[in-house]
Formats: sequence, C-alpha cells, structure tokens
Amino acid sequence: MTTRQACLEADRRDPLAAFKDEFELPAGLIYLDGNSLGALPRGAAARAAQVIGQEWGQGLIRSWNTAGWFELPARLGNKLAGLIGAGQDEVVMTDSTSLNIFKALAAALRLAQRAAPQRKVIVSERDNFPTDLYMIQGMIDLLRQGYELRLVDAGLSLEQALDDDVAVVLLSHVNYRTGAMHDMAAVSRRAHARGALIIWDLAHAAGAVPVALDADGADFAVGCTYKYLNGGPGSPAFIWVAPRHRDDFWQPLSGWWGHRQPFEMADTYVPAQGIRRYLCGTQPIVSLATAECGLDIALRADIAQVRAKSLALGDRFIALVESRCADHPLTLATPREHARRGSHVSFLHPQGYAVMQALIARGVIGDYREPELLRFGLTPLYLSHADIWDAVEILREVLDTRAWDRPQYRERAAVT
Amino acid sequence: MTTRQACLEADRRDPLAAFKDEFELPAGLIYLDGNSLGALPRGAAARAAQVIGQEWGQGLIRSWNTAGWFELPARLGNKLAGLIGAGQDEVVMTDSTSLNIFKALAAALRLAQRAAPQRKVIVSERDNFPTDLYMIQGMIDLLRQGYELRLVDAGLSLEQALDDDVAVVLLSHVNYRTGAMHDMAAVSRRAHARGALIIWDLAHAAGAVPVALDADGADFAVGCTYKYLNGGPGSPAFIWVAPRHRDDFWQPLSGWWGHRQPFEMADTYVPAQGIRRYLCGTQPIVSLATAECGLDIALRADIAQVRAKSLALGDRFIALVESRCADHPLTLATPREHARRGSHVSFLHPQGYAVMQALIARGVIGDYREPELLRFGLTPLYLSHADIWDAVEILREVLDTRAWDRPQYRERAAVT
Repeated sequence: MTTRQACLEADRRDPLAAFKDEFELPAGLIYLDGNSLGALPRGAAARAAQVIGQEWGQGLIRSWNTAGWFELPARLGNKLAGLIGAGQDEVVMTDSTSLNIFKALAAALRLAQRAAPQRKVIVSERDNFPTDLYMIQGMIDLLRQGYELRLVDAGLSLEQALDDDVAVVLLSHVNYRTGAMHDMAAVSRRAHARGALIIWDLAHAAGAVPVALDADGADFAVGCTYKYLNGGPGSPAFIWVAPRHRDDFWQPLSGWWGHRQPFEMADTYVPAQGIRRYLCGTQPIVSLATAECGLDIALRADIAQVRAKSLALGDRFIALVESRCADHPLTLATPREHARRGSHVSFLHPQGYAVMQALIARGVIGDYREPELLRFGLTPLYLSHADIWDAVEILREVLDTRAWDRPQYRERAAVT
Repeated sequence: MTTRQACLEADRRDPLAAFKDEFELPAGLIYLDGNSLGALPRGAAARAAQVIGQEWGQGLIRSWNTAGWFELPARLGNKLAGLIGAGQDEVVMTDSTSLNIFKALAAALRLAQRAAPQRKVIVSERDNFPTDLYMIQGMIDLLRQGYELRLVDAGLSLEQALDDDVAVVLLSHVNYRTGAMHDMAAVSRRAHARGALIIWDLAHAAGAVPVALDADGADFAVGCTYKYLNGGPGSPAFIWVAPRHRDDFWQPLSGWWGHRQPFEMADTYVPAQGIRRYLCGTQPIVSLATAECGLDIALRADIAQVRAKSLALGDRFIALVESRCADHPLTLATPREHARRGSHVSFLHPQGYAVMQALIARGVIGDYREPELLRFGLTPLYLSHADIWDAVEILREVLDTRAWDRPQYRERAAVT
C-alpha cells in the first residue's frame, strides 16, 4: 500500500516537477479540473498586457501587420502541429471547436459524396460530447439531403455501426465523461476499410496524450486549447486536415480570412491554398495571442514524460480511491488499461453532485457531469503525486463524515 | 473659409470633448482609422488583467459561474441592444460577423422557404464587404437547393433587383468603402413589400450612427464591436433577431451554448428560448470581457450628439480637402448628403496606396482599400475639429511635395 511518503518520493524523481513553477495556482488548492479549464501560465498576463497596451493601444490598426495579428491562426497552428503529429500548413488555430466540427463535417461530407453519393449516415457515439452531436444534427437539418445520425451506445462495438451507408465517422479521441480513449490508428483503419472518412475531436487529448494524426491515418481533426494546452477561458480552437484532403475540400464557412487574397476585396470567394481556407472571420486577438503562452509550455514538455506521469497519477488515484474510500458507493467509470485511458479519471457516485460541491468547498476542484459522474483531471505539468494523495484524503473525509449531505451542496447552481 | 482657429472654437463648444480622455491614444498621432479598429479604452488593460489574473488564475473553472463568464454573450448583448434600437433578449455578442451572417442567412432562408418556397434569390450589393458575399456563396454551395446570389452594381437601383424570386436581402447599413448609408426603414419596407426578408450588416454603423432595428422593421442584423464600439482587435461580433422571428427560426450552427439546457448533456439538440439559440460554442472570454469597456463608453455618449459631431467633422473634412487640396486628383467617393452618409469619408486618388503610406509615415492614420480609395474614419469620441484641420494640412503637404512618390510607399505590404 502506498503512503504520502511514497508520493513525495515519486515527486522527487519527477522529471516534470519544475513545470509547476510555470503556472500561477492559488495557494491551498488542489486543481483537478485542468481537463475543463487549464491553469494560468505565468507569462499570460504580461502577454495580454502587451497585446492590449502596446499592440492595440500604440500600434492600433498597424498591428495587423507589425505585430503579426493576421498571421496568428496559421503561426500558432504550425506550433500546435508538433503536439498532435501534424505537419506544417495543416493546422489553424481559430473559432470554437463546435464551429470547426461544422467545417470538417461539411468538407468530409462533400468528399464522401463525390466518392459514394449513396452513403448518407454519419456515425458517432451517444456519449460523445453533446456539441459534437448537436453540430451534426444542425448540419443534417440544414442540408435536407437525407443524411442521418447513427449513434453507437456506450459499450457497443463501433464495428457493427460501420456499414456501406456510412459516409463519415465523428469520434472523440478521449471521452469527456469517462476518459476512455480510442485507438486512433485502429479505428481510423477500420473506418477506411468500410469506406468511411473519420473526424477526430481532440478536445480531451491534445496536450494530454500522444497524438499522431498523420501516422494514424486520420482525415480531419478538431480540438480545444483551453484544457490541457492552458490557453485561457474559451481560447480559440483548432482544426487539422490531412494533406491528402487539404486542397481538395471545400468548407462553407467561407469568410474573408479564408480567401486566397483577402485584401483584393474581390466579390467572388476563392479559397486560399493550404489550411488557411479553413479560416472564416476576424479572430479575437487578445484571447488568441494570450493562448500562445500555454502552448509554448506544452511544447517544452516531453509528451512521453507527460503521458507516463499522467498514467502514474491515474493509477495512483484509482488505487487510493479504491482502497481508502472502499466503504463508499464509488464505481470507477474510466478504463484501467493504459492504452484505453486518457488523462482524467471518473467515478460514479449516487450523490455525485453534492460530493463534488463538498470537495470544492474544501479546496479540491474537480467537476461533475450528469449523471452521477465525479470527474478528476490529472494534468502532469502542475500536479504532484502528493496532490493526489491529499485530494483522496479529502475525498475520504467528505465521504466518511457525510459532509456532502447538506442542502447547500445538494442544490444545483444554474451553471456547473 | 474655415481656419484652425475656427476648429479650436468648435472644439471648445463640443459636448463630447471629454470623451477623448477615456481613450489611450499615442501622442502625436491623428487616428482616422477607428472605423477599422477602434482605440483603446483606458479601462481595458485593467479589465483584461482582472479577467486573467483573478478570474482565470484564482477563480479557475469556478469563474464560469462566479465571474459570470457563461452569461457574458447575453449580458453584453442586452447592453448593446440600447445602441441599435433593440430590446432585451434580442441580441447576443458572440463569434465573428461572418459567422453571424451564416446564422442569420440560414434562419432567414428557412423562414422564407416556409412562406414562399419558390423564392430562390439572395440579393446583395457588389460593393458590399466581401465576407458578406463570401458567406452567401458558401451557403448556396453548401445547400445545393437552387439558390442564387444576385448582386446589384453600385449606383443601380436596388428596387429593380427586388422581384418575386427574392427570398432574402443582405445589405450593409453603411458601405465599408464609400461610407454611403442606406435608409434602413425605407429599404426594409421595400423588401417586405416585395415579399423578401432583410438582414442588415451594421459593421460600420453600430456606435457610429443612430440605428433603430425594431422601429425600422429589420428582420435580422449582425455587426462588429471592434470598430466604433472600441472592443479590441477581433472582439466578438453580435447578432440580433426581430422578436417576431426569434423563437420561430432555426439556425444550423447549433452548438451546446445554444441548447436549452447545456449542462443536461442530452444527446439531442433543443434550442434555448430567446436569442441564446444563436450561440454556438465556447466564447473567447478575455476578448469578450475586455470588450465591455468600449461598450460602456459608447453607452455613456448621447448618440444624437455623436451623430451631429460625426457629420460636422465629415463636412469639415470634405470642405477642407476640396479647398486646400484642390490642385490634386482627389475625387469624393462619399455622399455629401447627411442622410446618406455614415461616419467615414473616402476620396479616390490614382496613387491612393502610396498617398496613404506617406500619410501614415507622417502620423495620420487612415487606410486604403482597393482600388484607389483613401478612407478616413471620423470617430467623434476621440477626434477633434483641430485634428481634422491638422490631418488635411498633412495630406496637402504630402500631395504638394509629392512625398508619396517614393519606392517604399508604392510597394505593397503583404497585408494592408
């Protein structure tokens, strides 16, 4: 059985330990929600102050050129490429994940239609993050071309859903609730073997687990920069397109930033060469520029070390909860197997909502997802093994004392 | 003939003169490009520092509730409503203007299709801002339902383009090149009389001219917050829907922020009641929250005084250029008539690009738009009559001395 001493030992051997100093974290808090909103990089406030005070205030309109604002989506996309196994001119950082799903889906459907117009099914998983499903539903309703959404229920085989009617598969690499991870190479291969294209949502994967989009045969990918990439609340998302499709597709959110010559002010849209055709309108520069700070930290970390520590933290967290909270009705919702696990761990508890509120009140911040799910994000860049020990001790105390059983913890906030 | 002394007199009588202190402007610069990127409000840097340091850094994930992040698009939309003649729960501040055009167009086409499915034409103007046209083109290509774009050439009557085939009209209230302004009430009435719906793009109008969306019978509107509303580079745009359509339409960028109960995590999209159904994905909070500073300044200014000063500055600018630069080939591209003019003034010059570069090098910042157009934004909150005098004197000097006739001014930058 592990001890706090053993945790401190593990922390002393941790090659990533120094990264914690790159973030500003509130004292006395154990933050297990970096899978929802990553922590604040130390340089981010200064970067935003520079963008606002100097670039906007002094440079004014000139900063579109002189401060490189117009290049930010492509430049940061090229940086991000290294974290997801992509090449140059394959990624742009722009818009929201939802909007990028719409672009990728529109392009994938158009490609599929050219190759096999009879394929009218879009496959996803019922427990995929809702916005992925909502964007598909919006697209289907808009097009009125006979498309349908086929949802695979949790635990059932994706294989059975893949038949000759399937045009496109849209999956999250790491499930937002359970942390279950797909084998990207195997699933992509299977989709292709059945004649379908595949879009990967990397929201809970980018910066957390090794991703090899090009090598694993993905067709399209989207993802988020405000979780494991610590870009700041709502920082712009990203979209990647495989080079074999990149200049071949078409995406309908065809705003002026995606035009081949945006300042020609021509009256007809001509898509830019390369990934820039996935841009649409003017981007929120303060949020976008600030996000570079978190990205730079992630690029300095060895993703293999990040992955090893994430799994070690997860193993420890699971073992501690299962041993020290064994008397309580907690059920692990996350796969134990390393190859099938992302970087967060979830447990079901019948009073999950109240338990999480009690934890938060005691300075252990995870989050709750309907129904019954306690979710704990394990971010190797700013969490230690001792943090895991301490968090589980507080969880044990909350459960042993029934501290969660109070009206103020049971009452749902408007937004959670 | 006016004099610099007369300008200083006018400035002493200016009821808006004190607003200049609310902005941080570089010393020695005359900024005539607030119609492209508004100036920095004094409070904006502190607001961003608070959002980053306190709300993100200390509050972390809790700030979605405690700092009201989730409510920002609706709360700022309600504030903005007062500036454009709209009511509560009719506006959200979100995404880019281009994306909001897509939403409004999709909804308008769906409404039109229900009422008159044979109407397949979308009308706009050839010299509308290109992204408006590109978004229409993207939509038409996506839908493949036989829609077509009919462009009215500059100077020709919109009236002739409105026949029984027209489903939707999309116009800019104030033209981005010439500053020409449509009579919103009259044009909306004409579109309705011909059985079409009308979408107004307020990019160059909001905060610059009085807008009365509800009273003038508009159906949909979109607009920009980083021009006359001084929200910061790329700050999120807005969308307005007439209450009579608001709960009746459907928009296909149906992300989780537009869901009736986003945290239920249901697998089927159900639109929120009211204008929130126009939200899609997670918003860039630093850019969004910072934009409130400029909005608050605009709300404190009397829009009638703003309009009166804008027209006075424009009259003075036109008169001075035409008298003091009379020997040079400058042609006014902006309507003289007050009722047909927005808040910027443009002149054509055969060497417009080089002339603008020479002006910028001398601290007079306007911008250039293809072809031949020198564009000067007149922002009453931080420009004085003396600024106008001084700017024209520098323009005169640049022209009289042919200062523009140098290689470094003629060579085009990659982005302008």
